[in-house]
Amino acid sequence: MEPRISLVTLGVTDLERALHFYRDGLGWRPSSASVEGDVAFFQVGPMVLALWSRAELAKDAGLFDSGGWGAVALAHNVRSREEADTAVARAIAAGGRLLKAAEATEWGGYSGYIADPDGHPWEIAYNPHWPIEDDGSIRLPD
Amino acid sequence: MEPRISLVTLGVTDLERALHFYRDGLGWRPSSASVEGDVAFFQVGPMVLALWSRAELAKDAGLFDSGGWGAVALAHNVRSREEADTAVARAIAAGGRLLKAAEATEWGGYSGYIADPDGHPWEIAYNPHWPIEDDGSIRLPD
Repeated sequence: MEPRISLVTLGVTDLERALHFYRDGLGWRPSSASVEGDVAFFQVGPMVLALWSRAELAKDAGLFDSGGWGAVALAHNVRSREEADTAVARAIAAGGRLLKAAEATEWGGYSGYIADPDGHPWEIAYNPHWPIEDDGSIRLPD
Repeated sequence: MEPRISLVTLGVTDLERALHFYRDGLGWRPSSASVEGDVAFFQVGPMVLALWSRAELAKDAGLFDSGGWGAVALAHNVRSREEADTAVARAIAAGGRLLKAAEATEWGGYSGYIADPDGHPWEIAYNPHWPIEDDGSIRLPD
């Protein structure tokens, strides 16, 4: 199997509230491929971020949803400490919740966490060891 | 903020078991950037998949972990129904658990779900409406 994540789907309880955060707040533009009003797709680099009903996602995947956090975190890496501070502030202004204020990390970077309106955590990080290419990609050493 | 997911981190309770699935089973190769023995990083297209202690991840993000699923699903899209069947079979052989057998979907595709050894769900999907580029990317309509 090729190492690939094609989509990340976040279950949401109120799509309009989630869109207010991602579209209106962060400024990410949904694709016209969003269908039937209960899902939204965003182009994020070469992959897709989907927002979809949490209940429908659980049903589709055959999973029981106890309503909490499930040990998944997304990260949005940026190019400087200042850009990290700006991004955290923007996410909070958009309706996100601060989980951890950005601070220097033991691995030599700078990082904070915010939760989107459904509680999905995003780390906002500046990692000087992993430069971000012009196209937004990260390339690890082999 | 640029629309970008830089990393997806999956919390795991046994890193060796998770590596047995992703590295030995699926054949994904960890980067040498993996550090200190409690985390593994994989290059997945232009981004990074990280496996890290579930407890450490909860602590780092300032989150309470009730131990269940948190309404996040990853998808691994493939180029045909046959490739989907092969990928599901490989994931199960690697120690994954079948959540939903692959079947034709109402949106005209073909999809199943498997869970990794920590319960993180992966959809394995063939979506004829979203062709996969040579570099593995998906490009939505604007």
